[in-house]
Amino acid sequence: MTMVDGQGPIPDARVLISGNRIQEVSTGNISPLPETDTVIYANDAIVLPGLVNAHVHSPMTIFRGMSDDLPLKTWLFDHIFPAEAKYMNPDSVFWGSLLGCLEMIASGTTTFVDGYFFAEDIIKATDKAGMRALVAQGVIDFPAPGVPEPEKNLDVASSFLERWINFSDLIMPGIFCHSPVTCSANTLRKAYEISDRFSLPLQIHLSETKEEVAEIEKMTGLRPVFFLDSLGLLNSKLIAVHVIYLNEDEIECLAKKDVKIAHCPESSMKLGSGIAEVARMLEKGLVVGIGTDGCASNNNLDLFGEMDATAKLAKVAGRDPTLLNAAKVLNMATVAGAKVIGLDNEIGTIEAWKKADIIIVDTNTPHMTPMYNPYSQLVYSATGGDVRDVIIDGKIVYRDRQFTIVDSDEVMEKVNSIGWRIFKERGNYI
Amino acid sequence: MTMVDGQGPIPDARVLISGNRIQEVSTGNISPLPETDTVIYANDAIVLPGLVNAHVHSPMTIFRGMSDDLPLKTWLFDHIFPAEAKYMNPDSVFWGSLLGCLEMIASGTTTFVDGYFFAEDIIKATDKAGMRALVAQGVIDFPAPGVPEPEKNLDVASSFLERWINFSDLIMPGIFCHSPVTCSANTLRKAYEISDRFSLPLQIHLSETKEEVAEIEKMTGLRPVFFLDSLGLLNSKLIAVHVIYLNEDEIECLAKKDVKIAHCPESSMKLGSGIAEVARMLEKGLVVGIGTDGCASNNNLDLFGEMDATAKLAKVAGRDPTLLNAAKVLNMATVAGAKVIGLDNEIGTIEAWKKADIIIVDTNTPHMTPMYNPYSQLVYSATGGDVRDVIIDGKIVYRDRQFTIVDSDEVMEKVNSIGWRIFKERGNYI
Repeated sequence: MTMVDGQGPIPDARVLISGNRIQEVSTGNISPLPETDTVIYANDAIVLPGLVNAHVHSPMTIFRGMSDDLPLKTWLFDHIFPAEAKYMNPDSVFWGSLLGCLEMIASGTTTFVDGYFFAEDIIKATDKAGMRALVAQGVIDFPAPGVPEPEKNLDVASSFLERWINFSDLIMPGIFCHSPVTCSANTLRKAYEISDRFSLPLQIHLSETKEEVAEIEKMTGLRPVFFLDSLGLLNSKLIAVHVIYLNEDEIECLAKKDVKIAHCPESSMKLGSGIAEVARMLEKGLVVGIGTDGCASNNNLDLFGEMDATAKLAKVAGRDPTLLNAAKVLNMATVAGAKVIGLDNEIGTIEAWKKADIIIVDTNTPHMTPMYNPYSQLVYSATGGDVRDVIIDGKIVYRDRQFTIVDSDEVMEKVNSIGWRIFKERGNYI
Repeated sequence: MTMVDGQGPIPDARVLISGNRIQEVSTGNISPLPETDTVIYANDAIVLPGLVNAHVHSPMTIFRGMSDDLPLKTWLFDHIFPAEAKYMNPDSVFWGSLLGCLEMIASGTTTFVDGYFFAEDIIKATDKAGMRALVAQGVIDFPAPGVPEPEKNLDVASSFLERWINFSDLIMPGIFCHSPVTCSANTLRKAYEISDRFSLPLQIHLSETKEEVAEIEKMTGLRPVFFLDSLGLLNSKLIAVHVIYLNEDEIECLAKKDVKIAHCPESSMKLGSGIAEVARMLEKGLVVGIGTDGCASNNNLDLFGEMDATAKLAKVAGRDPTLLNAAKVLNMATVAGAKVIGLDNEIGTIEAWKKADIIIVDTNTPHMTPMYNPYSQLVYSATGGDVRDVIIDGKIVYRDRQFTIVDSDEVMEKVNSIGWRIFKERGNYI
């Protein structure tokens, strides 16, 4: 499955990798293997481009399952915000994010778009895991983890970009504005100016709840999309996350400005926020990637589950089983994801001279048998647990379901001990 | 996790099994192990009752991914029905069902409720796999696989019950009426009389689509539930499947008559049929189990994914994150499932003298770390792939992710060859 536009699945294919790039994709009467260091056989398996998680807060693995099934405001103000203030620090962010990286790798994600605080510790974790990412420093006009003085939030973000922009070929720094409700017009405008100066993408949560839309309309007299447009924020480097409550004019405006969309169906379902009109967005030509959101509201980082939810939720919402077919959804998690992060010239498909970000999915199991249509199988039958091997930037980071460059036992132990401390301090879980 | 009402998770627990029954569940200062044949350690794992799949057509694994994302009528009349007529026979039903059994075992299901044609071959497969099940012969007033003359459908079903009722302690035969649209009033009444004579549950698809409800109202002047009530079908041994389009009076009527419900969220999502009001049903006291439906409309038999979908779909449909919390959903897939099949005195919880149907879920992975709340972890973070060991009726059928009593390679090979033949005859998959 190269995911190259117009190209179907290639049976008996061979992918040659040289350094960090794909050298050749061939099939048919395959010539003898050239001399090579490593051969991975993918019989009874599907080879496809690494998935792109278009929206995640990776350190929030720390809070996985800590407080679920609560009213939205109770969850946020009585659980998540206080826990973030108390327990998020460079150490927990590093280990939480590294655990998130391992979880993403083991479920076939090779690139992710992150937004959180202590972002430099996320970069360190991402680098250690060997992953590709856009890692953004959070900006919010309230005291936040690592940024106790909100008036300094943009200085922190700006220094973060300067410090990390040349750190690694695989990792881009960025800015993540929490939302147009929690960031002032002035903060949004400045965040955009800083991002623009570095030619980097800017992320923002947008129109996730009805209440948020009403609040912005009350404050500005404008629907959220047009409010951002009035600030000059809408362009091809803006990544708008969730975007559930849009009217027709807003969809058209986003499409015209080529704003990128990150769709997080499982999180929006679990929080009861609503259902984004993805089929409508695609129809209008918008680029829509798929994100898991953070582990506090999902509670996993498995893009296979998220693809399944993306397809099925669209169908039931529209009462139309033809909406978002499996091939389209797989495209969203690969090709569109690459576009969201602005790397579609480098990743998202398997073709010569692209970066070697490749995953191999085991199909030799009852739930992947028989095989009529690999798109259907990947979207509707597979889970992240079916991923057998992962290559990022030409490097094998996961082989036969074992991590090759990180000691996963150490990472789980660290996160368990952080979680255990939180658990003891917060009391019973039921 | 015993799932015993009012009992929370028990840390450091020990479950002793003798023969096919649980002998003792203990915790605390654990005394030395009694002399025993086999010890399975479950460190870094959760022990819980085997899951109950409340609705499946197991042989349909044969058609997994064969035809997806199509308009409902095209899918049914141009793909599924013709393929069933052409390719379903005792051989394909046996191997398809056996593959389904392996898939269910590997994802933690120990008991299932099946309804299809050639049901005796499903019984043979179930028996070979060592699973517990209610296996029902399909009844429909049209020519069907193995029942070319519809006027004989009830004779076939009746002989099936007689032949298999005493075959095995683990397997109950039953009747499955396709729907009140495809079975006449007379067929429904007689099917009920036959089931009742054997004191066996009767299954029926009910109110799955708006069109079906309209058709029954037009035909009978009654809403579907009241139509069944007028035929005398509503009682505690009726399993109503899907039940998406119900009004308030129908919910109350079903609750009053203690009709059992099988909720299949992923299938209803993928087919775009609609969203059953599960939270409302539970509020009214209905017993609601969770089913995967067949692989042609899901496309897997993983109840972990189905639990996740059950919780999240209810929340987003009701715009309320407190609906169907994780513990309730796990209850649906265990305790309520056992009630649906009428075996709640025997299975569904882990307690002394119940049948030993037990699964062990691995938690020593990034996506199951850290652990605050095992209910949340099982429903929102786990997939079927996390199941490590499965015991049914005291017998280990799956150990360290390996099947112990069935040669899974042989089964996959058989189903692949059936699938390959269908694939070649039907043409390209895209």
